[in-house]
Amino acid sequence: MDAVNLDAMLARFADHWSPKKIAQVNDYDVRIVKSQGEFTWHRHIDSDEFFMVIDGRLVIQLRDRNVVLGPRDVFVVPRGVEHCPRADTETAVLLFEPGMVINTGDAGGALTAEVEDFG
Amino acid sequence: MDAVNLDAMLARFADHWSPKKIAQVNDYDVRIVKSQGEFTWHRHIDSDEFFMVIDGRLVIQLRDRNVVLGPRDVFVVPRGVEHCPRADTETAVLLFEPGMVINTGDAGGALTAEVEDFG
Repeated sequence: MDAVNLDAMLARFADHWSPKKIAQVNDYDVRIVKSQGEFTWHRHIDSDEFFMVIDGRLVIQLRDRNVVLGPRDVFVVPRGVEHCPRADTETAVLLFEPGMVINTGDAGGALTAEVEDFG
Repeated sequence: MDAVNLDAMLARFADHWSPKKIAQVNDYDVRIVKSQGEFTWHRHIDSDEFFMVIDGRLVIQLRDRNVVLGPRDVFVVPRGVEHCPRADTETAVLLFEPGMVINTGDAGGALTAEVEDFG
C-alpha cells in the first residue's frame, strides 16, 4: 500500500454510518465512518471496538453513562457492552476492529452496512 | 476505560522510541510513541504494523523507497518487510499492532523497549 491520508479518504464519500476500510492490519480493519444523528443500540459479542474521533464530536451512549469524544479522543467499547453512538453534527471517526465485525452487531436492521474497501 | 485524549497522553512522557500502550482491542494494542532521529532497521516476522502520524513528520524507510507521513497520514508496514523509521523533528505516532509485537522486531539491540501501560 501507499500512504493514505485521512482527509483525502473522507473526501471520497458522504454517506453516514457506512464504514470504509482504509487499511488492514493482519485480520483487523482500519475503518473510517461519517456519523450524524443517532445510530442503533447494539453490541458486538465477540470483539472490542476502538473509536477515535477525527473531526467533530461523538457521544457513545452506554446503558449507564455517556462517553463524549472530541478530536483526538479515543475509547474502546468492550465486547458485549451495549452502545449507541450519536453525533449532533457530522463527525468523522476512525475504527479498529476485526474484519468480521458488522457495524450493527447483534441488532441488524436498516443501518447494517457492507464495509466498502477503500484500500 | 474512560475516554483517553491523545494530547493528554503525549504530555505524560518525553522519551523517544519507547511506545506507551493507551488502549487494548482484544489482543491488540493501541500505542503512542514519540520519535526523533533514526530508529533501527528491523522487521516483524509475524505481524503487520499500522502507523498514523499525530503530529510531525515520519519517514518510514523501506529498502526500495521511503514513505513520508504527515499528520493524519496512515501506512501499514506488511509483516516481514524491513523498515527503519526516521523523524527529523519530534514526531508523535499512533501504532496499532498485536500486543506481542516488540518495537525492534527481529533486530533487538539498545532501542528495544518494554511497552509501558498508560491504560
